[in-house]
Amino acid sequence: MRRKRIFEGKAKTLFEGPEPGTLVQYFKDETSASNNQKKGVITGKGVLNNRISEYLMNRLGEIGIPTHFVRRLNMREQLIREVEIIPLEVVVRNVAAGSLAERFGFEEGTPLPRSIIEYRLKNDELCNPLVSEEHITAFGWAAIQDLDDMVQMSLRINDFLNGLFHGIGVRLIDLSLEFGRLWDDEDMQIVLAGEISPDCCRLWDLKTNHKLDKDRFRKDLGDVKEAYQEIARRLGVLPEAGPVDIQAPETMQ
Amino acid sequence: MRRKRIFEGKAKTLFEGPEPGTLVQYFKDETSASNNQKKGVITGKGVLNNRISEYLMNRLGEIGIPTHFVRRLNMREQLIREVEIIPLEVVVRNVAAGSLAERFGFEEGTPLPRSIIEYRLKNDELCNPLVSEEHITAFGWAAIQDLDDMVQMSLRINDFLNGLFHGIGVRLIDLSLEFGRLWDDEDMQIVLAGEISPDCCRLWDLKTNHKLDKDRFRKDLGDVKEAYQEIARRLGVLPEAGPVDIQAPETMQ
Repeated sequence: MRRKRIFEGKAKTLFEGPEPGTLVQYFKDETSASNNQKKGVITGKGVLNNRISEYLMNRLGEIGIPTHFVRRLNMREQLIREVEIIPLEVVVRNVAAGSLAERFGFEEGTPLPRSIIEYRLKNDELCNPLVSEEHITAFGWAAIQDLDDMVQMSLRINDFLNGLFHGIGVRLIDLSLEFGRLWDDEDMQIVLAGEISPDCCRLWDLKTNHKLDKDRFRKDLGDVKEAYQEIARRLGVLPEAGPVDIQAPETMQ
Repeated sequence: MRRKRIFEGKAKTLFEGPEPGTLVQYFKDETSASNNQKKGVITGKGVLNNRISEYLMNRLGEIGIPTHFVRRLNMREQLIREVEIIPLEVVVRNVAAGSLAERFGFEEGTPLPRSIIEYRLKNDELCNPLVSEEHITAFGWAAIQDLDDMVQMSLRINDFLNGLFHGIGVRLIDLSLEFGRLWDDEDMQIVLAGEISPDCCRLWDLKTNHKLDKDRFRKDLGDVKEAYQEIARRLGVLPEAGPVDIQAPETMQ
């Protein structure tokens, strides 16, 4: 039952899927920050993100956002459609935090005049630099039509998740999205890929501003696992058995 | 004959002009790099840049690019129209060099697939960060129509200077431009401001790739003054008396 490993990411591994055009996305507990200078393990994170991302991808599918998600297979794995990943992160920011706050000298938590879209090139060696539409189109990382689709989808995703998180007492500060090209014979469609989880969203408690995301790891704030559990709990997807003791199956090592 | 100082920049000082709506732009020999961590003096640079910028602004005026330049007053000063400076540098790049080469891991000198426009926020404290149209319009640093005008002018300026420098055996690698709003009663026009000189252009000898610009100072390559002189000489604007001994008039200190 060994499966071929297709791609080893920092937080996820992709394996060959059960049929052509599919992959199995495996969620790891490993995490990293500061361009890989800081590494760690958040026990149970993979289990939680698998559930959280399943839930959110399904809700987005229901409002007509095409995604790579097919179905969750087990605690740590989900079946996805194989796409050609576009080497960009689309970041949507509602409130100043992280690198934007630093870059422009804003205090974290300052509301932005409007939602702001940023792009990062997915390239660890270059520390995922901020890039503009000029760079993206000049170097051919995506076509202008691809970007238009990605921006339109990102703004809808941001609006929807903004509302959804608000409903569970959480403020969506920003989120980072990944897209891919899904080919169907000659037709191509841009679809949401990757994951949506506290690894790639900043989520603050609406009343207390308590951080419920990966910044707890980045900034050594403690209670990292508890933050992910809290998001899963509020979304109603916390597994009954605590995820703490769940280990990766041996075949996945 | 004391004049009121309006603005003290790193390479230029602005004084009150002889009549309303005008300023006197004084070119200094001081220079800086690496976000002000590296400072120095290039003796005679101000005299040369005053001449070089006069020459290029006049040529650009002739092809219909509106500029703030009126006329050169003396060795170190020129009369300009007072404009409301837009807090952005528009960078046009034809060949990979400097921060773009570093950011994307290109070897310096790699031709770019097409001319690329970048924007930097003019803010020393924040180290003049790279910004996108999203940031510029969201934070109100310029309106989208201003940006359109600036980009159209920048591309024309780049085309023209590309040709002009080619004619004197120099390759225009990139250039950084500054713009301002010129008000005429209720009417507003975006005009080219600042200067055009080896301080803000990368200029390589066409045959040898020898650098003839501020990178000689940034990278401690030596013969800094000689590079500026060579550009002035090829443009036909090298002052007859060598600029080396020309000191700032006392009233300007």
